[in-house]
Amino acid sequence: MTPSDLATRLQQNIDQKTKPPGALGQLEALAKQIGLIQQTETPDVSRPKAFVFGADHGVCAEGVNPFPQVVTEQMLANFATGGAAMNVFCRTNGIDLTIVNMGIVNSDARWPEVLHAAVAPGTANLAKGAAMTAEQCEQALSTGHQLATEAFEAGHNLLIIGEMGIGNTTSASALLSALTKLPPEQSVGPGTGADSATLDRKITVVRQAATRCASHSADQCLMELGGFEIAAMVGAIQASAETHRPVLIDGFIATIAALVAEKRQPGTVEACVFAHRSAEPAHRHVLDTLNAQPLLDLGLRLGEGSGAALAYPLVKNAVAMLNEMATFADAGVSGG
Amino acid sequence: MTPSDLATRLQQNIDQKTKPPGALGQLEALAKQIGLIQQTETPDVSRPKAFVFGADHGVCAEGVNPFPQVVTEQMLANFATGGAAMNVFCRTNGIDLTIVNMGIVNSDARWPEVLHAAVAPGTANLAKGAAMTAEQCEQALSTGHQLATEAFEAGHNLLIIGEMGIGNTTSASALLSALTKLPPEQSVGPGTGADSATLDRKITVVRQAATRCASHSADQCLMELGGFEIAAMVGAIQASAETHRPVLIDGFIATIAALVAEKRQPGTVEACVFAHRSAEPAHRHVLDTLNAQPLLDLGLRLGEGSGAALAYPLVKNAVAMLNEMATFADAGVSGG
Repeated sequence: MTPSDLATRLQQNIDQKTKPPGALGQLEALAKQIGLIQQTETPDVSRPKAFVFGADHGVCAEGVNPFPQVVTEQMLANFATGGAAMNVFCRTNGIDLTIVNMGIVNSDARWPEVLHAAVAPGTANLAKGAAMTAEQCEQALSTGHQLATEAFEAGHNLLIIGEMGIGNTTSASALLSALTKLPPEQSVGPGTGADSATLDRKITVVRQAATRCASHSADQCLMELGGFEIAAMVGAIQASAETHRPVLIDGFIATIAALVAEKRQPGTVEACVFAHRSAEPAHRHVLDTLNAQPLLDLGLRLGEGSGAALAYPLVKNAVAMLNEMATFADAGVSGG
Repeated sequence: MTPSDLATRLQQNIDQKTKPPGALGQLEALAKQIGLIQQTETPDVSRPKAFVFGADHGVCAEGVNPFPQVVTEQMLANFATGGAAMNVFCRTNGIDLTIVNMGIVNSDARWPEVLHAAVAPGTANLAKGAAMTAEQCEQALSTGHQLATEAFEAGHNLLIIGEMGIGNTTSASALLSALTKLPPEQSVGPGTGADSATLDRKITVVRQAATRCASHSADQCLMELGGFEIAAMVGAIQASAETHRPVLIDGFIATIAALVAEKRQPGTVEACVFAHRSAEPAHRHVLDTLNAQPLLDLGLRLGEGSGAALAYPLVKNAVAMLNEMATFADAGVSGG
């Protein structure tokens, strides 16, 4: 069946369900999207897999964050013992979660519950030069791609991605300004709670870095301005699109990874389901750029994949609607 | 502990979790609300109970609906065999569901899976006089109240209410205009898909009925303009508030029931969690009137409790956050 024929069939199936046409609103569009991604009239999202990629950022040296850099490591330890929001939401919603250390400053840190795939002890300072070497960027992309591919081979049928990395809103804002020419005043937000002096420093760093990369390709921008966890998300998103599996995108940082993935390989975004509109002001801009209709709008601004884990039950319900609801003919209801 | 002390404690508990203050947005306010309703720092919503109340409306004689009146009965049969959206969402989200026949036109209809508590074979035509007698209204209120109370006694700790009744958007709009003086042009919407001629008839019916009841009490308005399923929802909402259990309110019709409950007993609305902002235009007005912040905004307009069933996982996750997330002190994370 061609994608266009499948889209028609999915829409017909949805319209024959015992409800007025369109009465389940965005949930109907979501069910159709999942069917199109998985190339089937009976999609399955029963085995979700979440990866949270953690890494440190050299740009923290510029004083762009209200939290000390050691919080990245402390939060990986918190993930390891199951105490973070993302752990709680994954447990509550039946999501299999793996935490991946993509490269934090403390290269000796190890937790048995965390997958260690460190590229380096944090990126270099993007304000002074390239955040990554080409080899480092390729390694991070490839790690994300491989982990997602292995998860799909193991039977997982939906991916959830999230991140942890003190400093990564600066990296994401720099990518956004470099890739879309959005003025730094609009691409930079408060992150996890920056004051106005910190914000001013962030804007200056982003302006200089984005200007330096203004004519760069998406690959070059990712290497110059990204982070190991952002590159890993880009790789995981691309693996999802290639494997025809939906990937549930969390907040601002994860959406920037989707933007980079789309610039590298146009069409990738069709495999992305955008979980929520975050409180980070620039998130709205990048969602609009990607023509995305997020599912939730709850003022979340935590990251970690937490918004995506919260939105997963909606995806599960949308697919259940498609697979399980009676049709007008089945049920003998008038008006179909 | 006084409610004010409990509110302070709940806020402190939430602020000590390993996340920037406020980073979980509306989910934090939700967790706090559930704690306040259940009067505890460790709320529990693990045993949800949903009731869908179905009934017919005499006002259908005025030609206010695109669907034939027999669809109420057909949909009860569809609920009985598990094929409606509400069945699917309740199964998917682990919600115990009971369908209640509050009085459909066919008084011989019986399904073993449906609780039969019919007050009469549909209400009288509200365009010509009172929809219910005082005794009928009291019986419907009392049925809803009793069913909810029994569910709580059986150990359910969260209620979900929904409805099915061809003609009930007209009843709900009439109640809204009578109780808040909203002009009929704003209280009347397309319902499940009315055309413009049907809409005009609906507005005329609502104007006349609301004018007739302009100086009536909430009880009198409910009797004159309501339906058996709406009165049952009012009773169930009041039982929730009295028993200190949260009640998840679905769309426009259920929110009108919450408005009536609040007018009958001010403060009742504090036990209500509003699931979603529906596509029905007047829903926004009644939500604003109740100062409600709904959880979802997905363009739903189905009723049945479907939006409330979809929002339930968010409530479960909010409570899990409060009960299970590590604090800064627990996890040794800086910044608490």
